[in-house]
Amino acid sequence: MRRFIIIGHKASTTADFKLDDLAGGAGRLDVLLRCINSAFFLSHDLRKDVEVLLILQGPPGPPKSIRLVGSELRYLNPDERSTGALIRNALMKEARSEERSSPGIYISGRNLQDTLGLLEETELIYLKESGEDIRNAQLAENVTFVLSDHMDLTDEEESMVLLKAPKTLKLGPISYHADHCITIVNNELDRRFL
Amino acid sequence: MRRFIIIGHKASTTADFKLDDLAGGAGRLDVLLRCINSAFFLSHDLRKDVEVLLILQGPPGPPKSIRLVGSELRYLNPDERSTGALIRNALMKEARSEERSSPGIYISGRNLQDTLGLLEETELIYLKESGEDIRNAQLAENVTFVLSDHMDLTDEEESMVLLKAPKTLKLGPISYHADHCITIVNNELDRRFL
Repeated sequence: MRRFIIIGHKASTTADFKLDDLAGGAGRLDVLLRCINSAFFLSHDLRKDVEVLLILQGPPGPPKSIRLVGSELRYLNPDERSTGALIRNALMKEARSEERSSPGIYISGRNLQDTLGLLEETELIYLKESGEDIRNAQLAENVTFVLSDHMDLTDEEESMVLLKAPKTLKLGPISYHADHCITIVNNELDRRFL
Repeated sequence: MRRFIIIGHKASTTADFKLDDLAGGAGRLDVLLRCINSAFFLSHDLRKDVEVLLILQGPPGPPKSIRLVGSELRYLNPDERSTGALIRNALMKEARSEERSSPGIYISGRNLQDTLGLLEETELIYLKESGEDIRNAQLAENVTFVLSDHMDLTDEEESMVLLKAPKTLKLGPISYHADHCITIVNNELDRRFL
């Protein structure tokens, strides 16, 4: 299982946004939607062994967590707008404990700490420019990556992640958008395990 | 210079489409918009040494070619909708020879053959599952990749490309969406030349 946790620092925690304004009023939800695309889509196929966990921290009711499960997903298309509609549907639920919104999409009130606490038997990877090159690193097939949206992790969030003793890796000589990071990671894991 | 030529087999050649329907009425323009994102965006920066050439072949007036020049680009944002608006603006021009639509964005009536004919002093790469692994290949810094949208190249298009004696490379053990291919290629080139 490959798992990607992505923190949306300003991402809307209500369904009260327009699909025409995903990069604005929805708190840069567009970044997270592209992460979903990168995590799941193959040419003419969907990755079944992937789970994406979005931690939405924007107004008005943070945190909300949306979990997408590759083996159960239906109705996912690659474009931002239609994926935005699926996430908006999930946000219509008033879930504190986890509830299913549509096949393969679950919503809860979990924060980053809760999410990290629920991880079992997975290697944790934190992507950072100062890390070891992923191409030289040993990687488990059961692995969880922590990423951030267009903003860095806060000091507090980084501390929570580091407490779990992750492996710190980098993907190249420069920094990439979160969705591009996921694509590069998927390619590296495909080369190791497919 | 890194150059990506992407063929949009059904992509609209008129501005007469809705930004709400980029994956439908615009002929899967969403695929090409994600390719633009992958080609240019770095974390907090835009790649200046990249050029993207879209060959639009959908109705009603194919072909149209849109050329995006990294060193001149302005107003490009990562989300699909706003990039779709820039492309739609370009399609409002009735250009046969090349005309500028906005900073760094040019439109013309060039087809794939014209576009390949204008390439100078660049290594040409054709991505195909049967190719050599990119990680083992020699690559020039001045390089042009030919990609297709959600459909394969037609036999005729493939023949045109093969006539230019490209290097045929693969990116991994499975096939990826065109925008994911561009992200993986950019990462490989960053590792070689940055």
